[in-house]
Amino acid sequence: MRILVLGGDGYLGWPTAMYLANKGHDVAVVDSFHRRLWDAEIGADSLIPIAPLHERIRLWNSLGKKPIKMYVGDITEWDFLEALWKQFEPESIVHYAEHRAAPFSMLSRRHAVVTQVNNVVGTLNVLFAMKDFTPEAHLVKLGTMGEYGTPNIDIEEGFIEIEYKGRKDTLIYPKRPPSFYHLSKVHDSYNIEFVCRAWGLRSTDLNQGVVYGVHTDETELDPRLATRFDYDDVWGTALNRFCVQAAIDHPITVYGKGGQTRGFLDIRDTLQCVEIACLNPPQLGVYEVYNQFTEQFTVLELGEKVRDASEKLGWHPIIENVPNPRVEAEEHYYNAAHTKLLDLGLQPYYLSETLIDGLLDTVKRYTDRVDKRLLYPRHNWKEGLLEDVETEKI
Amino acid sequence: MRILVLGGDGYLGWPTAMYLANKGHDVAVVDSFHRRLWDAEIGADSLIPIAPLHERIRLWNSLGKKPIKMYVGDITEWDFLEALWKQFEPESIVHYAEHRAAPFSMLSRRHAVVTQVNNVVGTLNVLFAMKDFTPEAHLVKLGTMGEYGTPNIDIEEGFIEIEYKGRKDTLIYPKRPPSFYHLSKVHDSYNIEFVCRAWGLRSTDLNQGVVYGVHTDETELDPRLATRFDYDDVWGTALNRFCVQAAIDHPITVYGKGGQTRGFLDIRDTLQCVEIACLNPPQLGVYEVYNQFTEQFTVLELGEKVRDASEKLGWHPIIENVPNPRVEAEEHYYNAAHTKLLDLGLQPYYLSETLIDGLLDTVKRYTDRVDKRLLYPRHNWKEGLLEDVETEKI
Repeated sequence: MRILVLGGDGYLGWPTAMYLANKGHDVAVVDSFHRRLWDAEIGADSLIPIAPLHERIRLWNSLGKKPIKMYVGDITEWDFLEALWKQFEPESIVHYAEHRAAPFSMLSRRHAVVTQVNNVVGTLNVLFAMKDFTPEAHLVKLGTMGEYGTPNIDIEEGFIEIEYKGRKDTLIYPKRPPSFYHLSKVHDSYNIEFVCRAWGLRSTDLNQGVVYGVHTDETELDPRLATRFDYDDVWGTALNRFCVQAAIDHPITVYGKGGQTRGFLDIRDTLQCVEIACLNPPQLGVYEVYNQFTEQFTVLELGEKVRDASEKLGWHPIIENVPNPRVEAEEHYYNAAHTKLLDLGLQPYYLSETLIDGLLDTVKRYTDRVDKRLLYPRHNWKEGLLEDVETEKI
Repeated sequence: MRILVLGGDGYLGWPTAMYLANKGHDVAVVDSFHRRLWDAEIGADSLIPIAPLHERIRLWNSLGKKPIKMYVGDITEWDFLEALWKQFEPESIVHYAEHRAAPFSMLSRRHAVVTQVNNVVGTLNVLFAMKDFTPEAHLVKLGTMGEYGTPNIDIEEGFIEIEYKGRKDTLIYPKRPPSFYHLSKVHDSYNIEFVCRAWGLRSTDLNQGVVYGVHTDETELDPRLATRFDYDDVWGTALNRFCVQAAIDHPITVYGKGGQTRGFLDIRDTLQCVEIACLNPPQLGVYEVYNQFTEQFTVLELGEKVRDASEKLGWHPIIENVPNPRVEAEEHYYNAAHTKLLDLGLQPYYLSETLIDGLLDTVKRYTDRVDKRLLYPRHNWKEGLLEDVETEKI
């Protein structure tokens, strides 16, 4: 299958491209390197050193594996996207090419606008390219579980059957996103649902949980094929931050009470899920949604899991509750369906094994690269900047 | 009350500004004149001649009424908006400054992107201006009933209480918008709901039905204070087109079966509703939604009402069903709540009276300005351009 991986230089895009090529697909990656640019802006970097995309591709293509093509350009620019589509004619499009950090989107007006315009326009362009040039292609779009927020009823996969005043309909699940970034994904979802309905395109929206891990069969082939690991206050996930904190004997900093519950999955499950989605396209005209995660934890439970796994390695981190910079419920009901991908054959990895199986060890190897200034939030979503971060935020 | 009317040169913005000034409020209008620019692009014009905004304002301010201030600029440009906010310090913001035509948004990729970026960025800027400079101000935002689409259950005002698997929550009403324009309003709604929740701002979102009529107490003072009347395939409403068709003895063209049901209201009710909203701000942190319409009709019923009112004037239009250029259900359930504004004191006008009470007569006066080429759709939402429209669409 000809698969275009948009955002192929990213944390998930790069391992996905290798995984799909290894499975025998014809893969091309596309990237504009905005993520590396934004790293420079934030003053953060991947804990694990990552090679330039050109070097990664060159190395991969020298291994005797199915080669990966590379296109460099920005999908918000139509002239680039049009030429790309006509040249590659994708059968599936795996779309990771979006701004992906809630804290970044909350830094300032400019950051909110950049996030929403980048994501909405990029995705609109993809939808028009599909309509104009490959109307039977399948868009596998990375969404987020964060679109749903934390409602007091069960979260279903994309749609909900509502019985109301004696009548019934199945409608898009009501959203309650917690940041301008998450909102941009909600905007995308509505745009995509519309074009499936109006133009007869097809798409699978993967509402993904928080992904952890860096080891895949392909990244293990050579250190220069490694993917990124973010632990800072803007790009990092709570779990990554906790691992770094445990490895340098720093308190594990839980935001607020830590009762925030989220869905999680191993990076290897992301790769499986994306291929499963590609191989199971919906009918033309159908907008399909899968909730893509394998386990639910509270933030406090995550901290405890990292602490417990650390103990087995002889480390002794403590857990510290710090003021929550985000605007979110810290205690709430959370029960989200996630059976569709399991029904299609997903074989999950689980967090406890992954932690002990290499993640903490890997982090330990790079502790000399840790910038401790990035372990505490520098920005509060309600009140703005918390402390001098050397750059003024505009 | 200091009220800023964004989009104050438009069909509703201009009459709203005069109405609020007449009620004794301190009013300033803001406009970028993009609507007049887009008229030039589409090759359409208001049936009723309209004066330049400068002339309207000069005339109004010469009548001994409470004067209206005018700012010329684009709210998607932050430097303009920031200076405006600091200078005027609005207590209420009536936000009409959005791209407002579904057919325009469907013309091409560029038109979809322009519509969504213009509306989303303009509104984001307004939200940040409120947060930074007037955190207690009240945003009265014009949304649309079209955000809901045509679900098979009753439409509530903004939110719906869902009972599901033994649990309960009140969530934002699920949306099913029928065009990129309507989608842009859904994006806005989600962004606004978020900032009320996250930052404690306050807003009333007026999900407005289709507005008809051109006569208000203030437009009647002088013909140079008239507001626009659009009847073409891009900007015109079905009702306006039907009135023009009846007045020139052209068949009344109903799209498809005509079973599409929508909510409608008189322009004078819009003005009442907007003032009611301004005078009844929600608490800080609350996102309030009112469904703003007074009657529901099918498109076919609209055609019949125009035909019946025409008969009384001695005209004899026939009704013709033409292929529907839109993607929409032509027969469906529709029952939308609209009691909140009535509870706050709205005294509605009704369509049958308005038609006989001047609308058809007014249209008749300008039949020499009708461009018949604009009476049939020139663009199909699924298949693109239907016929040569002199300009190529890019």
